[in-house]
Amino acid sequence: MVVPLCSYRGTLAAMSIVVQKFGGTSVADADRIKAVAAHAVATRKAGKDVVVVVSAMGKSTDELIVLASEVTDNRHPREMDMLLTAGERISMALVAMAIQDHGVGSTSLTGSQAGILTTEEHGQAEIIGIRGDRVREGLADGKIVIVAGFQGFSPETRDVTTLGRGGSDATAVALAAVLRAEVCEIYTDVDGVFTADPRVVPGAKKLDEISFEEMLEMAAAGAGVLMTRSVEFGRRYRIPIHVRSSFHGGVGTWVKEETMEEAIIRGVAHDVSEAKVTVHGVPDQPGVAARLFEPLAEAGVSVDMIVQNVSLQGVTDISFTVPRADLDMAEKVAEAVVGDVGAAGADVDHNIAKVSLIGAGMTDELGIAGKMFRILADHGVNIEMISTSPIRISCVVRGDDVAAAVRGLHDGFALGEEQESAENG
Amino acid sequence: MVVPLCSYRGTLAAMSIVVQKFGGTSVADADRIKAVAAHAVATRKAGKDVVVVVSAMGKSTDELIVLASEVTDNRHPREMDMLLTAGERISMALVAMAIQDHGVGSTSLTGSQAGILTTEEHGQAEIIGIRGDRVREGLADGKIVIVAGFQGFSPETRDVTTLGRGGSDATAVALAAVLRAEVCEIYTDVDGVFTADPRVVPGAKKLDEISFEEMLEMAAAGAGVLMTRSVEFGRRYRIPIHVRSSFHGGVGTWVKEETMEEAIIRGVAHDVSEAKVTVHGVPDQPGVAARLFEPLAEAGVSVDMIVQNVSLQGVTDISFTVPRADLDMAEKVAEAVVGDVGAAGADVDHNIAKVSLIGAGMTDELGIAGKMFRILADHGVNIEMISTSPIRISCVVRGDDVAAAVRGLHDGFALGEEQESAENG
Repeated sequence: MVVPLCSYRGTLAAMSIVVQKFGGTSVADADRIKAVAAHAVATRKAGKDVVVVVSAMGKSTDELIVLASEVTDNRHPREMDMLLTAGERISMALVAMAIQDHGVGSTSLTGSQAGILTTEEHGQAEIIGIRGDRVREGLADGKIVIVAGFQGFSPETRDVTTLGRGGSDATAVALAAVLRAEVCEIYTDVDGVFTADPRVVPGAKKLDEISFEEMLEMAAAGAGVLMTRSVEFGRRYRIPIHVRSSFHGGVGTWVKEETMEEAIIRGVAHDVSEAKVTVHGVPDQPGVAARLFEPLAEAGVSVDMIVQNVSLQGVTDISFTVPRADLDMAEKVAEAVVGDVGAAGADVDHNIAKVSLIGAGMTDELGIAGKMFRILADHGVNIEMISTSPIRISCVVRGDDVAAAVRGLHDGFALGEEQESAENG
Repeated sequence: MVVPLCSYRGTLAAMSIVVQKFGGTSVADADRIKAVAAHAVATRKAGKDVVVVVSAMGKSTDELIVLASEVTDNRHPREMDMLLTAGERISMALVAMAIQDHGVGSTSLTGSQAGILTTEEHGQAEIIGIRGDRVREGLADGKIVIVAGFQGFSPETRDVTTLGRGGSDATAVALAAVLRAEVCEIYTDVDGVFTADPRVVPGAKKLDEISFEEMLEMAAAGAGVLMTRSVEFGRRYRIPIHVRSSFHGGVGTWVKEETMEEAIIRGVAHDVSEAKVTVHGVPDQPGVAARLFEPLAEAGVSVDMIVQNVSLQGVTDISFTVPRADLDMAEKVAEAVVGDVGAAGADVDHNIAKVSLIGAGMTDELGIAGKMFRILADHGVNIEMISTSPIRISCVVRGDDVAAAVRGLHDGFALGEEQESAENG
């Protein structure tokens, strides 16, 4: 994900650039498109150079996927990308028109016109560089430039590619990096990043700021508002990301390098998108784990947490979590390995959830993990697996216990209150 | 409309190329798309190199236009083209997928990927050249290449353009010219070119062949099956065009240089898309006509027929026909000219139709015009304007009389019968 920063600045140096990204909900119909246009124009009139990155309208990407499924049962990755990139093409042209209605110049650019260079993996391409000449030319002409999110092209194959989930955010932050924007604004249907998912914890509090590292852990732990890949871009190129509501003008959450707030715990994240695979009766010999996890990696299975039980009479159990999407493949690989290594068997547990506590402050504070485990126990939540990083503690629990766990931790660490009182929670 | 013929032939010389164009109705849903794919695959398996040119699915272009009208009341030509080109992108990707399901390689190319170079007039660009490298590469790889019809890009502005009405046919015939295809097949919802519109004349006969010149006159006279611009390409580069049904495999109509059939009259065409403007009491002085028709040309009004009455007491009437789409502008210009030249006034007649008799044979035959006028009179049809070319006679009649005129002429010249008997009709 290296984005070569271009040294060319031309006439742009005088004005600071704002990149504004609007997701599918924000451009779902004509009225919302006009609202996006008005917002971009207001930013332009406030003296900024504005680049707008848009997703496809509402559910239009899903509709195109349904259309493809009516035509074929097979995967045709290149043509699927050709098909799906029609979606942003439509929204970006409409946004550009609506902006021009304000008497402000604008021009829409596809990923390939904007010079979004990617790897060649259709459907999950990675951004490898951004040319951006036409973006700069548009800005130099005083225009608001609209760029299609989610799409790019492979210089290797000269084919159009898509970036996969969270792709439009990645486009926006990478563009902001290359243009040295002062901020990348991610407009979304929530007010910002919260101390916990407000649908689970009604008292969850919106964070005014969060560090890149904390946001990375939050995203990896299941906070859906931003994908790790865009946070990673922001962190690497020091582009502040402002996650904010597309419904009102209030301040959202700033994701940036340093934060003023000295919170110990930033928030609780949870993730119900994973499943657990356990291989039982594994001979406790050197190299056994490699014989399981190497084939999993080769099969493209993304393994999250791994726990190996204490060995008993020369055999042990190995459990790991994977995204549900990878579960069939993971099970197949695990079952093949069972025979290879002489294990007793493998089984799958669909009903799990991961609950994580995130905060850069916990590195300096003792006893956070202990307090977390006690709170879970007090709420009758059994812990099945544990994994930690310097700024995160994650526990796998029963899927049915997830709400109680999240609420208990949010309460127990007093995350809904002002931060001063957090240590007394 | 110059298409530079590329001298490169590479490995393609061995196999003959067929270009197949399918319109919106032919790719309207998943089933029709699969049928198009099966047909292209069958042609490939019969030993041809196949290039498929597709329009947008069914009414999808109209739906995009409605979407734009919800966002803006203004014309934004560049963004409108960006928007509309999403349509072919969707159909071409789906056709490519359906072809791959047959185990045959295929790749879809946008107008710009296929190297369709155009002028920069958005919405009505003209093809100025075709690079076609990626089309040739695809064919050399043994693939069926799908090309988006209707769209190209301007090398001047590097922007995506659309070709306007009949644009997909133009793409197909121009591609066929550049690739030196053996034929350009235009698949449509009718069986071919008829001696008259079968909706008006139930006994109309499908023509097996027609010359480029006759087809040009038929198209200009209102036969909707092909636009003049594609016939012009075919004529210039001697690419036979086969107009045929997308519903069955029967032979349609071959449009080509020489025809075997020595018909005197090829068919009757009619056009109800025009209106008539008359400027009354025009001083009969040199230069008056120029003062009317120069401003009309400058205003982009496409004038078809012109008739100037015999001068009476130094004043005359000038009538001309224009497409209804240009009528408002034509009326405005005419009214401005009335004052300039001291004419009495201008009025507009919406209720007209043009009926034309077309046939290369009529150049060698005397009395065709006289017979035409007599037939119209016998059917009680009054003639308001007359215009002729070596292979066409057109009469403007009352709009209400058009069906009687077309049926009368088709009958009178015995066009529904075998050609031998035509002279006895």
